[in-house]
Amino acid sequence: MQSVDQVIRARWVVPVRPRTVLHDHALAVQDGRIVAIGPAAEILTRYTAASMTHLDQHVLMPGLVNAHTHAAMTLMRGLADDLPLMTWLNAHIWPVEGRFVSPGFVAIGTELAVAEMLRGGTTTFNDMYFFPEAAAEVAQRMGMRATIGHVVIDFPTAYAANADVCLQLAADLLPRLRRMPLIHQSIAPHAPYTVGDAGLCGARDLAASEKLPLHMHVHETAHEIDEAIARDGMRPLARLARLGLLNQHFLAVHMTRLNEEDLAICRNSGLQVAHCPESNLKLASGMAPVATLRKQGTRLAIGTDGAASNNDLDMLGELRTAALLAKGVSGDPTVFPAWEALEAATLGGAEAIGWGAETGSLEPGKAADCIAIDLDHPATYPVYDPVSQVVYCAGRDQVSHVWVNGNPRVVEGRAVDWDTQELFARVRGWVERIREKDNDR
Amino acid sequence: MQSVDQVIRARWVVPVRPRTVLHDHALAVQDGRIVAIGPAAEILTRYTAASMTHLDQHVLMPGLVNAHTHAAMTLMRGLADDLPLMTWLNAHIWPVEGRFVSPGFVAIGTELAVAEMLRGGTTTFNDMYFFPEAAAEVAQRMGMRATIGHVVIDFPTAYAANADVCLQLAADLLPRLRRMPLIHQSIAPHAPYTVGDAGLCGARDLAASEKLPLHMHVHETAHEIDEAIARDGMRPLARLARLGLLNQHFLAVHMTRLNEEDLAICRNSGLQVAHCPESNLKLASGMAPVATLRKQGTRLAIGTDGAASNNDLDMLGELRTAALLAKGVSGDPTVFPAWEALEAATLGGAEAIGWGAETGSLEPGKAADCIAIDLDHPATYPVYDPVSQVVYCAGRDQVSHVWVNGNPRVVEGRAVDWDTQELFARVRGWVERIREKDNDR
Repeated sequence: MQSVDQVIRARWVVPVRPRTVLHDHALAVQDGRIVAIGPAAEILTRYTAASMTHLDQHVLMPGLVNAHTHAAMTLMRGLADDLPLMTWLNAHIWPVEGRFVSPGFVAIGTELAVAEMLRGGTTTFNDMYFFPEAAAEVAQRMGMRATIGHVVIDFPTAYAANADVCLQLAADLLPRLRRMPLIHQSIAPHAPYTVGDAGLCGARDLAASEKLPLHMHVHETAHEIDEAIARDGMRPLARLARLGLLNQHFLAVHMTRLNEEDLAICRNSGLQVAHCPESNLKLASGMAPVATLRKQGTRLAIGTDGAASNNDLDMLGELRTAALLAKGVSGDPTVFPAWEALEAATLGGAEAIGWGAETGSLEPGKAADCIAIDLDHPATYPVYDPVSQVVYCAGRDQVSHVWVNGNPRVVEGRAVDWDTQELFARVRGWVERIREKDNDR
Repeated sequence: MQSVDQVIRARWVVPVRPRTVLHDHALAVQDGRIVAIGPAAEILTRYTAASMTHLDQHVLMPGLVNAHTHAAMTLMRGLADDLPLMTWLNAHIWPVEGRFVSPGFVAIGTELAVAEMLRGGTTTFNDMYFFPEAAAEVAQRMGMRATIGHVVIDFPTAYAANADVCLQLAADLLPRLRRMPLIHQSIAPHAPYTVGDAGLCGARDLAASEKLPLHMHVHETAHEIDEAIARDGMRPLARLARLGLLNQHFLAVHMTRLNEEDLAICRNSGLQVAHCPESNLKLASGMAPVATLRKQGTRLAIGTDGAASNNDLDMLGELRTAALLAKGVSGDPTVFPAWEALEAATLGGAEAIGWGAETGSLEPGKAADCIAIDLDHPATYPVYDPVSQVVYCAGRDQVSHVWVNGNPRVVEGRAVDWDTQELFARVRGWVERIREKDNDR
């Protein structure tokens, strides 16, 4: 018998690739990697392990991948809801960010986000925010996988005076973040309406020379598109294509307003889409044409967006909303079925953010990024099809176990390495100051 | 000091009526009724109680009201997803119902539904299914409030041969169910396309003579409306108006397709609407114009529909979907704000199903139907506004305590009166037989 670090056995194993449900199977894990998946009886005959986990009423599956968020915005969760987009930004979000955003703010906000995401079964996230080094350090320290975006934005912020400074900061930080094993990086021009051609070309060139993906909000609202047509004489996506930003390493976030020309650009460039259905609904931005994108072969990932416009970072909830909404929007109950939604929220996300070789599915050779969902709950009983239960019924608090790189992050619903109460106590100080500032407006 | 049965003190009390958040308040409860609500310091000075519950990080609010479900369909949860409506019905749901539906099936399916709903903070439900006496007995025995519909349907089922028989069964059962203190009743003609004019008039007359509300699926799909126009020369809602069914005691479920004429009928009749956003999305039926209905003063409740088309009976999730979707559909992020969604899922539901005088808000004189939601969770931290947290972030498993008529049903997340494992074991026998039948198709 071969000795490995751990064996995880579950009633149902859903590896995502291939699309199958394995009954009473087990994973053997060594040095953070999956070395074998097979029937439990066979794995237990071939491997001996110091750590054995037996999950007899659980689905074991790849960790969820949150393909778009602004992690630190947890500090502004529920600060302002139900407002027009520009009131929300001008009267609440931007004044608070202008006053408080700093490495300390980003670190603690990201810490809360990582605690929430890991607790709910998300093992990898794709971030876009200020002071990316602070976010990267937190993710690495808390043992969560991430792609950290170096934001590029023209107007002055607490982080940088303009796009040139953003690009310079990115170039300076790249080597430091490369030393963090759980961190990949992206270049993240904020949006077509906040970055001019020079900034976009600089982002494009930096991404190309450093072999990094691009991560950008595109076609979030009708207003964005109308304004671009008036200013540039073309739609934002056409402008990005003309400037040479679009290829299979470009992740376009939102994409709620797509005409035939836009859809052709998606097909021809091979870009990937991060769909954020709850944020798009809450801000009334629009609804991405998921069925049409899938039909033409555009690759899809799912993201929560930031906690200020969702208001949680719950990928199980988000993938469910995505699966439901795609049917409602298309008028076809057969589109974006449970399997496709699950794939988008795992492997689709991993591929969209440069982690496809490491995570997003349970396959020998990949990292042991996996989660267990306990179906022993009145809301997920009976179980005719565990994939249906995961997509259409399971709640985030049914996530019982979470591993990243084989490293347990949540065990029986409890965080392994951090004290949630102590974290809340540290958040509290920021909250009082933010509330005061927001009340001053 | 006055002696009462219990005092419940919470960090935040959200009575729903009035629309306010009370800090560190308490409820005094005697004989299942709220006798006082006030600042904790004051209530603790005035009342002494055998049972004291102190919820120091919780929102205490009225129990949620599920305004439309088919409780027993939990037995078919996840049996068939992602299918066209008629395939789903003809190839899966109807064959299983035809083979199995019986008082025993309804009893155990309802038991599972009641266990799920109480666990997730729903204290009252509005049911429409076969063998209503079986459902009523389960709700009464498990201590959950319900309005049980006497279904009326033309075509033969395991329950009744035709609408006449349905109406006779209803008339016979009425006195028996009236003896159950937690049960109200309604007459529930299934839908415009399954009940002819004679059955509808019979339902109308029975409801009027017995002073019961009517509960009916109306305008669920475009197909239903097109077919009605072809057959009757008018839209279903117009037909119901002509037949004299519509008034303030008529609860119209779904209402996804409403033109100006339909909206005028809503205004003029005072009918109430049960909005089931997740089922409507999943079956791609359409999206109810919530913002327009609210603007014209039509009263709104929220329901999950049955577990075969949702697939859970999670009212916290449903009210969140309703709040998000209303903004997406209308293109206006200010519509159906958190407070309105919360009201629709509590008081709106209670009023829609004949329980408005007893439940739906925390007011002296009303029944102590209340729930506590524990906000000490990374997904609901920080708390700028507890109502925002309940509507936009809280998960059903954060419901820690549930009382119906002052009677604890869930305490610290655990069912008080039933053994969930034992319930699952009894469900299991049915599941195997249903699976076999479904595989035979």
